[in-house]
Formats: sequence, C-alpha cells, structure tokens
Amino acid sequence: MVSTIMLAAPILGILALVFMFIKSAGVSKQDPGNELMQRIGKNIADGAMAFLKAEYKVLVWFVVAVAVILGISAYLDGDDATSWMISVSFVIGAVCSALAGFIGMNVATKANIRTTQAARTSLGKALGVAFDGGAVMGLGVVGLGLLGLGSLFFIFQGQFGVDTELNVLKTISVLTGFSFGASSIALFARVGGGIYTKAADVGADLVGKVEAGIPEDHPLNPATIADNVGDNVGDVAGMGADLFESYVGSIIGTMVIGAAFMSIPAFAQSEMAGLNAVLLPLVVAGIGIVASIIGTFFVRVKEGGDPQKALNTGELIAAVIMLAGTYFAVTTMMPAEWSVENSNGLVQNYTSNGIFFAILFGLISGLGIGYITEYYTGTGTKPVQGIVDQSLTGSATNIIAGLAVGMRSTAYPIVLLCAAIIGSYYFAGLYGIGIAAVGMLANTGIQLAVDAYGPISDNAGGIAEMAGLPKEVRERTDKLDAVGNTTAAIGKGFAIGSAALTALVLFAAFMQTANLTNIDIANPYVTAGLFLGAMLPFLFSAFSMEAVGRAANDMIQEVRRQFADIPELKAALEMMKRAGHDTSKYSPADLAIFNAADGKADYEKCVEISTKASIREMVMPGLIAVITPVVVGFAGGAEMLGGLLAGVTSAGVMMAIFQSNAGGAWDNAKKMFETGASVQGTIYHKGSEPHKAAVVGDTVGDPFKDTSGPSLNILLKLMAVVSLVIAPFLV
Amino acid sequence: MVSTIMLAAPILGILALVFMFIKSAGVSKQDPGNELMQRIGKNIADGAMAFLKAEYKVLVWFVVAVAVILGISAYLDGDDATSWMISVSFVIGAVCSALAGFIGMNVATKANIRTTQAARTSLGKALGVAFDGGAVMGLGVVGLGLLGLGSLFFIFQGQFGVDTELNVLKTISVLTGFSFGASSIALFARVGGGIYTKAADVGADLVGKVEAGIPEDHPLNPATIADNVGDNVGDVAGMGADLFESYVGSIIGTMVIGAAFMSIPAFAQSEMAGLNAVLLPLVVAGIGIVASIIGTFFVRVKEGGDPQKALNTGELIAAVIMLAGTYFAVTTMMPAEWSVENSNGLVQNYTSNGIFFAILFGLISGLGIGYITEYYTGTGTKPVQGIVDQSLTGSATNIIAGLAVGMRSTAYPIVLLCAAIIGSYYFAGLYGIGIAAVGMLANTGIQLAVDAYGPISDNAGGIAEMAGLPKEVRERTDKLDAVGNTTAAIGKGFAIGSAALTALVLFAAFMQTANLTNIDIANPYVTAGLFLGAMLPFLFSAFSMEAVGRAANDMIQEVRRQFADIPELKAALEMMKRAGHDTSKYSPADLAIFNAADGKADYEKCVEISTKASIREMVMPGLIAVITPVVVGFAGGAEMLGGLLAGVTSAGVMMAIFQSNAGGAWDNAKKMFETGASVQGTIYHKGSEPHKAAVVGDTVGDPFKDTSGPSLNILLKLMAVVSLVIAPFLV
Repeated sequence: MVSTIMLAAPILGILALVFMFIKSAGVSKQDPGNELMQRIGKNIADGAMAFLKAEYKVLVWFVVAVAVILGISAYLDGDDATSWMISVSFVIGAVCSALAGFIGMNVATKANIRTTQAARTSLGKALGVAFDGGAVMGLGVVGLGLLGLGSLFFIFQGQFGVDTELNVLKTISVLTGFSFGASSIALFARVGGGIYTKAADVGADLVGKVEAGIPEDHPLNPATIADNVGDNVGDVAGMGADLFESYVGSIIGTMVIGAAFMSIPAFAQSEMAGLNAVLLPLVVAGIGIVASIIGTFFVRVKEGGDPQKALNTGELIAAVIMLAGTYFAVTTMMPAEWSVENSNGLVQNYTSNGIFFAILFGLISGLGIGYITEYYTGTGTKPVQGIVDQSLTGSATNIIAGLAVGMRSTAYPIVLLCAAIIGSYYFAGLYGIGIAAVGMLANTGIQLAVDAYGPISDNAGGIAEMAGLPKEVRERTDKLDAVGNTTAAIGKGFAIGSAALTALVLFAAFMQTANLTNIDIANPYVTAGLFLGAMLPFLFSAFSMEAVGRAANDMIQEVRRQFADIPELKAALEMMKRAGHDTSKYSPADLAIFNAADGKADYEKCVEISTKASIREMVMPGLIAVITPVVVGFAGGAEMLGGLLAGVTSAGVMMAIFQSNAGGAWDNAKKMFETGASVQGTIYHKGSEPHKAAVVGDTVGDPFKDTSGPSLNILLKLMAVVSLVIAPFLV
Repeated sequence: MVSTIMLAAPILGILALVFMFIKSAGVSKQDPGNELMQRIGKNIADGAMAFLKAEYKVLVWFVVAVAVILGISAYLDGDDATSWMISVSFVIGAVCSALAGFIGMNVATKANIRTTQAARTSLGKALGVAFDGGAVMGLGVVGLGLLGLGSLFFIFQGQFGVDTELNVLKTISVLTGFSFGASSIALFARVGGGIYTKAADVGADLVGKVEAGIPEDHPLNPATIADNVGDNVGDVAGMGADLFESYVGSIIGTMVIGAAFMSIPAFAQSEMAGLNAVLLPLVVAGIGIVASIIGTFFVRVKEGGDPQKALNTGELIAAVIMLAGTYFAVTTMMPAEWSVENSNGLVQNYTSNGIFFAILFGLISGLGIGYITEYYTGTGTKPVQGIVDQSLTGSATNIIAGLAVGMRSTAYPIVLLCAAIIGSYYFAGLYGIGIAAVGMLANTGIQLAVDAYGPISDNAGGIAEMAGLPKEVRERTDKLDAVGNTTAAIGKGFAIGSAALTALVLFAAFMQTANLTNIDIANPYVTAGLFLGAMLPFLFSAFSMEAVGRAANDMIQEVRRQFADIPELKAALEMMKRAGHDTSKYSPADLAIFNAADGKADYEKCVEISTKASIREMVMPGLIAVITPVVVGFAGGAEMLGGLLAGVTSAGVMMAIFQSNAGGAWDNAKKMFETGASVQGTIYHKGSEPHKAAVVGDTVGDPFKDTSGPSLNILLKLMAVVSLVIAPFLV
C-alpha cells in the first residue's frame, strides 16, 4: 500500500507529461501561416533558443559549482556517507525546472504564429491553439515537478528507510536539494529574465524608435527580436520557473511538517506506517494534475463568445474535481481525528475534515488574491481611473497616484492571506498552513496554462499586425489578448500569494529541521534579523532596477554599433529616412536596398548581449539571496536566521505586491488613453498631454512590474530554501 | 536621596525652560529689519498662528474625547480608584507637546526676519540669531518633556508608592498617558502638518505660477503665506513633535524595563530602594539638557568661516559633556555588577560599564544614521549624481534612479541599527536597548536646535530675496541655508533611527506590562500580525499621499475663487498681465492698482482651508494608527499585537528611510541643475531638458519626504504607545 501510493506521484507526473506531449504535438501540427509569418515566428523562436542556450551555458557552471559545494559540505558534516546525495537532488531539480522552461518556451514560440493563423478561421480555434500552447508549459511544470519529487522520494526512502521519523526526515532533507535546484533556476529565469526583457525593451525602443526613426517591431531593428523574446522569457519561462519553485517548495515543506505526525498512534498504526501525512501533499498534487488535465478539455469558445468565460469554466471544473478528489483522499488517508501534545504541553486536535478545510482556504485565498490584483490594475477600474485622472496635471501626479495605488493595493491581499493563515491553522495546525499552500498550488497545471496563454495571444496579435493580416484577424487576437491581460494580472497576484505561503511553509519546515520550537521576536538577535530581513527586499529591488538601467545601456551600444557597422543596415536606414518612412514612396532601387538589408541585423548578437548583461547583473542579487542566510545562520544562529526569514517574507510580500500592482496599474492607465480615456468629461487620446504623462508612468512601472517586483517572489523562497538546506548544520 | 534625584528631573527641565526664555528674549530684541521685511514676517507669523489656532481648535475636542474614554476605561478596569489619572497624564502630555510646538513656531517666525537683518551686518551674527531661534525649539522640547515627565512621576509615586515593583509599574503605567498625549499631538503635527505643507506648496505653485503667471512667493498670491507657513509647520513644529514623542517614549519605556531590576538584591539594598534603574533615564536626559545648554554657547562663526563647523563644534562638545556626565551618573547610581536569572533559567550578567557602553552605542548609531542619510541625499554625492545622470534620458529614468537610491539607502542605516541593538543588548540586556535609545535622544536639545536652524535660515534667505536686500546679504543667508540642508538631512535620518529604537523600547515595555515573556514568530497569530503590521506603512503612506492630492485640490479651488471674487486682486492680476509682468513698465495708474491690491489677498482663509483639509485627511490614517492595535490586541490577543508591532516597526522603518531619502535625493538632484550640473562632460542648467526631468522627480519626492515618509515615524511610535497603554487590560 505504501509503495502504491508512493508510486502514484511519479506515475501521475508521467501522465501530465504524456498529455503535455499530446498538446505539444497538437500545436506543432497546426498551420504555421504564410511565409512572412513563419519568418517572424522563426526569428522569435531562434532568439528564444539563443537566450536559453546562452543562459544554460552559464547555468551549467553554476549548478556544478553549487552541487560540488553542497555535496562536499553535506559529506563532511553528514553522519552517514549518503548525505552527499543532496547534490544529486539539486542537479535533478535544476534540470527539471530548466527542462520545463525549455519545453514551455519552445512550444509558446510555435503557438504564437499558429494562433494568428487560426484566428484567420475562427475565435474558437485561435483560443484553442493559444491555450494548448500555455497548457504545455503548465503540464510540463507540474509533470516534471511531481515526477522528479515523487521518484526521488521513492528512491531515497529505499536508501534511508521510512521506519522512523528520523529516517523520513533524512529522506526529505536530501529532497530539499531538489527544491534548491528549482529555486536556482527560478532565480536565473525571473531575475535574469526580468532584467533581460526590460533591457531589450528599452534598447529596441530608444535606439530604434527614437534615434533611427523606425518602429519598435521593425525587422531592421536588431533588438526587436530580443524584445519579443523578452516577453516570452518573462511571462512564460519566468512565471513557469516561479510557480515550479512554489509548487515544489510547498510540497516538500508540508512533507517535513507531516513527518511530525509519524509517532502519533492513529498514524503509526495505519497501513502506511505513519507516512500518510508525509505522502498527502504528493497525492493532492497528483489529484490536481488529473483535475487540470480534465479542466483543459472544457476551455472552448464559439465565435462571438467570451474567451474569459471559457478559461473560467476550465478552471472552475478543475477546482471542483480537485476538491472532490482531495476530499476523498484526505478522508481515506488521514484518521478521522487525532491530537498532538506540543512541547508546551498544549494539546491540538486535528480532524480529516479540518485538513480538507485548510486546502479549501488555500484554494480560495489564492484565487481571491488574484481577483483583488485585477481590481487594482485592470483597465477601467476605480484605482486605474484615478491614475488616468491624475495624468491631467502631468507625469509627477500620475506617478504619485500610481505609487499610492500600488501601496494601497497591499491591504486586501494581506488581509486575505492572514485569514488563510489563521483559518488553516485553526482547522489543521501548522500542517494546515502547509497543506493550504499545496491546495493553492495543486491546480498549477491549468493555472499556468491560463497564465502562459496571455503572452502567446499577445505575440499572436503582434504577428498579425506585422504580417498585415485582415482586420477581423486582429480583432479576434485582440479579444484573446484583452483576456490575457486580465489573466496575467490575476496570475501575478496568485504567484505572489503562493510565494508567500510557500515561504511560510518552508519556514515552518526550517524550524522543525533546525529543532527550533520557538523564535522569540523580542530576542534582540531575532529583532536584528527581522530588520535585516525587511531591508533585503528594498536592497534587492534597488539592485535589479539599477541593473535594468545598465543592461539597457549595453543593448543601446550594440544596436548603435550594428547600425554603424553593417553596411546594408546603414544604407537601408538612410534610404528610409530619405523616403520619409513612407513605404509607398520607395522606388525600385529603394526596395532593392531594403530587401538587401533584410535579415542582416544580427538578432542573435543582441540576444546574447542582453543575456550576458542580465546574467552579469544577476550575480549580486543572487549572491545576496544565497549568502545572507548562510552568514546569518552560522554567525548569528538559527533563531536570528528565523528572524531574517520573517523579515524578508513580510516586507518582501508587500514590496512585491506594491511594485507589481503599481506597474500594472500604470500600464493599463496608459492603455486607457490609447483607446480614449475620459477625464472630467473630456476624452483624451493617444498623443495628448495626459497620455504622454501616462507613458512616463508606464516606463517607471516597467522594471517595477517585470523585474524587481516578481524577483522578490524568488528572493523569499530561495532564502527560505537555503535556510532549510543548511538547517541540519545549525542544530 | 531618592527624592533629591527624583526632583533633579523637573528641576533640570525648568533649567532648560529658563534658558529657552533667555534665548527667546534674545531673539525678540534683535532688529526686525525694515518695514517691508516686518510686513512679510508678520504675514508668515500670523499665518503660522492661524494654523495653530485652527489645529488646536480640533485638537481640544480630540484630546478631551480620548481623555474621557481613557479615564472611563481605566476606571472600569483598574483595580483601584486612581487609575483614571492616566487621562490626566494624557492631557498634560498633549499640552506639553502642543506648548513646545507653539513656542518653537512663535520664535522661529520671529527669528527668520531677524536673521535676514543680522545677515546685513555679519555671518556670525546671522548664525547666532538663526541658531538661537532653533535652540528655543530644542530647549522647549526637552524642558517641557523632562519637566512634565519628572513632575508627574514625582506626584504619582507619592500616590502609588515606590516600595514594590508592582507599585512602581503602576506609577509608570499612569505615566504612559503622557507619552500617548505627546504621540497624539505628534500625529497632528507630522501627518496633518505634512499634508498641510504640501497642499499649500502645490496650491501656491499651480494656480499662482502656472495659471496667474505670478511667482510662487508673490504677495498677491493668497497661498504664498500658507506655503511659507508650511515650511515652519513641517520642519520646525513637525520635527519638534516627532522628537518630543521619541524623547518621552524612550524614557518611559526604559523606566518600565528598569523596574524589573527592583527586586535584585544589589539594587534593592541601595539607598534608592531599588529605583536607580528606573530613575537613570530621567537622569541621563537631565545631563543631556545641561550638555545641550553648554553646547549652544560654542556655536559661533567668524566672517568667512564655516557655519557647519560651528554647529559641529557645539554638538561635539555637548556629546562629550553628556558622555562624561553620564559615565559619572551610571557608575554612581548603578551597582558595579549584578546578574538576573530570566524565566528560562538563563543568567544575564550586567555591569555599570556595560550600561555606559549601551548609551555610547545609542549616541554613535544615531549620529551615524544621520551621516549616512547625508551621503544618500547630499548635493554632489555619488547617489545623487547618479540621479542627475539619469535625468538626461528623461523624467522616467530620473524617477527610477531616485526610487532605486531610496531603496538602496535602507541598507547601511539598518546594519548600524542592528549593530546598536545587538551591541547594547550584549552589554546591558534589554535595559541596554532602552538606555541606548535614551542616550541617542539625550542631546535632543542641541540636536533639534540644529534641525530648526535650517528652516529659519531658509526663510531668512527667502525674505532677503523678497525684500530686495543687497547681494552680500543673500550670500550670507545662502551659506547658512546650504548648511541647513545638510543638517535637515541628518536630522531626518536621526529622527527615523530614534523612532525605530523608541518603538523597540516601547515594544519591550509593552511585553513586560502585558506579562509576555516570549512572542513566538511561528505562532500563526503572530505571523498574521506580522504581515498585517508590515502592510500598514504601505497603506498609511498611500493614504497620506492621496490626501496631499485632495488637500491641494481644495487649495487650488480657494485661490481661484479669490482671484475671481476679490476685485482688487482681479484688477491687479489683469494689469500685471497687460504689463507683461515687467515692474519697470508699470504706469502710475498701474502702481495704484497694484498697491490697492496689496494685502487684499485673504491669506488666513487659505491657511484655514489648508488646515481644515489637512485635519480632515488626517482622520483616516490617525484612526488606523490608534484603532488597529486596540482591535488586534483585544480580538487576536497580546501576542498577535506583538507581531503587529514587529511588522509595523520593521517595514515602517524601511519605508520611512526609502521615502525620505528618495525625496531628499530628488530634491538635491534638481538643485544641482540650478547651479549647473555636469552630465557626461556637458554642463546642464536651469531650464534645460534634464532639469525639467529632475523637476518631475522633485515633485514626486515632495509628498514622499515631507508627508508620507516622516509620518511613518509617528505611526511606529503611536502604535507602540497605544499598545503599551492597553497592555494592562490584555494580561
């Protein structure tokens, strides 16, 4: 029985991967459109692969170095010869996350042109392709996550045994390496990717549009592909790695907490030798996979229908299936009721229903935080209209309003998060908080599919524009894209909420592993840790914002160099200037010059520059995230490290919400002007003074929402995971 | 012996007040300058008084209402009939703080024109007048603070007795009302004042300069006086109330912690019946008063000399005297060594030298945080030059750079603060942290004199300009003003650092009063409290920034109304427009129109509008600060309240440093362009595109540095003090 359940996790992981390959093949065999569309698509896909290639080149060294350090220190400190296996887990975790990113990006950059092509036929077909493209990312993340975790657990438990709590904890302790590996890739994908995408954006914009006078998306602009790649890097691979980390972290953290139940008679006497609470997170995640797969079949829309409703239906059905399956699993696997006496002599009572309620809390709060995010950042909502109003008096008031909206938007998500923490604890103790996080993340498969659908639709719209397709195609992709903006906002909120809960779960696991029963906030070392921790999100954000500036500068230099050094590009730019950028005035000689320049821009060089810059700039924030907990833990002790984690989590969540939402709100305030925004009864359009003010706000918000804000999700979790990894050495 | 030392505090408080009156009389008898200068000065002084009058009208009701609630609930809950006395303390605390603000503002608005007049003779004389004006504020704050606290303690101990720890704690518990009263005024002065000053600033600027085309400081601009009043409100009264609160809070908090030593034999057998540790904070504060008074005599400068050096000399001498006196007091009053066994059975050893070291740590870290602030915000420093550089590519990059500087600037002050916390704890336990805060704030007398000197010099420069005085006068006041900018930056950093340490001391006192020996961060209620607490500074900042926008709008409406409704103003504005704002082209008839308008602008109405708006807007943030701890304390328990305080303090300090320093850095980046700033080898001046970009940054920074940032100092302390006040009910 134990091994059946143990094998369920890797098997369900494989199931997800099978469906992923089916969806992937389905996307690939769609019509890729005409020759021009295919060329645009190929450029983006090549750029994305160039990025991954360059990134993985550096990553390999990083992963090997950390694996060696990890293995040696575990070997030197470990009380048996197998503890170096943590470095194997680490490598596998890193590989799984990187692989999920690779597959997701690969399909997303195929799905974009195919979505455009499908939109020539019908809205329903276009939605299908875009969503299937996203589903590959979603199923890849949960499939590789659960397969990796499940099979490693199965292998290591064979090594260490599952007879005692100590042995199970030893097994999970080795497994934390998997989570650490996933976090490392997430750091590269989110922080590096965030720097990458904004550097490319600014480079393409400033030199291309402002200096050379060609549109941002013009094929002669060497940075344009990097810019399009950047969207995929940030919103597909970045988001995927972020959720992969949360998914894995929450499961492992809850397994650690669950091990504490092993010695409770009600568990120990069960068929599964007390392992039920340890295995439940894996089972819940597995049920989520099945639910997500079924849910994907319900994402359908007819011509003239609402794609949002289709996505909602899929998610709703997945949620209902997940809850039903989970209820069955919880009541089957867990005793109906039991109680635990903690070290203070207090008795906490548990019930299997309570565990289920905790999962429910997690699911609801995750969705709730997402919808609140949509309220603060969505087009036409009261807060965003407020920013639009303030644009009338210039960019300064626009920016003050955006900062205020971002800060104010922290309130409700935090109240909801606190309610989830207290509620799930009330019903199921610390284990409840853990399983709530697992519940929140169980449906990551379909959740991430919906998230990744956004940038695919966004790209599809751009391709329709560039390829000059008929108006109704663009209308259909716009409809998909508009929904994509909403899902992106919700996804960002969800990512922050799940990061916070995951960090808390890892925190609890850290305490248990470090044998801490209590971290007294009034202990001055803990207080100092708290302050230091609360400072880090500010420092980290400053580093990543400044990094964007420097990386953008590198990109600007490279684009200028290509314009000066590549004769065909230079000639074409001069010709275009001469013709006043009016294609209809091109003479046959002009056209010859233009065609000669086509494809001469060295996209890959720009992609490489941006990648190199982003990886270089990532070193400092990365080191802060990895080294601070190590230094504080060994110099100040486990309790001070606990204070540090509490500080970085609490302040980090606020800064993440603040920056993401301020950026999102500015972005949509600007967008509102593009379609005509009403301020005090007057309609202002693109190019008006208030619109220009709103553009400044949007530019300020770019690094906020795409670099520093989302990077904090990683900071929280990575520091917690590093603490968990070093916890055994701190006892 | 006990009563001699007990009487020392009120007597030294009276000494400070005597010197305050001497300084005040000295300022008053200086030459107020010519008729025009006197008229400008009178307008500002009248405006300031109008502000205070309007503010105090509302305040009276607030104070009475809170006093009644406090008295009744203390009476109902208290175990003896005298606990309602807390409301007496509350009223006296509020009155003392308000009185200090009144006296300080009154003299500052006299000192400004007299500084201008003195600058006609010599730099040394001008410095003397400006500094003496500031010294009145400084000595008033410490004098009223120590007199109030000292005499209330003397009276209440007669009531409750000092024979047992319980009775002493009862005495101090009643005294916490004094601190609460001081905090309430600080809320009005800092938050309301912060909203006031920026509303007036924007109103004067937008309608006057942009719409009517007259300079910001023009006498026909109805908002101009409100604008000048605002500077005094924020930088003199606001800062004074802020430090008054810290001063009083740190002393009371340390007294509570000190009461725990009463039962230690080494104390109990002393002549002072174990009260030494309770009285030491009052004694240290008293020594600081003497040191500050002596220090003021050394602030002198010769023509051509450096005013900064003069101020530094005064502060240095005061610091040396304070340390010498404190060393004597500590070694005399405290046993050479003793030890305490805490509830966990751990023994902490204390020495009198350790106590002295803690004081030293407090003093050094306070000054250190100030100097770090100067580095991040000062003209020509590397971070500010970075913002200047980024202005070249427009306002968006200027703002991103400023935000990054503000966020990055949290790092070193926090490291220093943590060093002070751990260092003072290492040497003298929790009492060490308390006495470190007292040590940091003991020299508030001269510190605040230096702070308040800044806005006086600033006003003096403006008056010299408006009164058309010779160039060398302006040069002298500019020299004073430049130093004033540095001292203001240092003062702001100091205020934040002291607020943080005071909040921690009050936190420790709260734990002791609420009988909490331990607040476990892993307790989910505490975790939820931590998250809620960390969210509040963001919400609070959002409220105050949005409040500035709304209040500014009220001011704009009023100025427009006056321009339309007052015939003389309307005529003069039309005449000036006709003459192209060139005074030399005014015909005799024009001059008659101009003179007829003089004094017709209803300054007081603008002052009242701004005051009313600021007080109205203050209600919401004020309620949050006062009600949240009460609700969380009674609904979630004392431990959750502890988590809330930890969250609000840690995130609040970061947000205060971030916003104050970002604002300061933007301000000085803009100022650098005014005198010609070098970017990549080119010099850019006022009116250049980069300068315009820097102006946008400065405008964004205004509410950051003058409203939301400094308001957080109050939030931290007020929430801690409210918690301390309700702590006895939570046991």
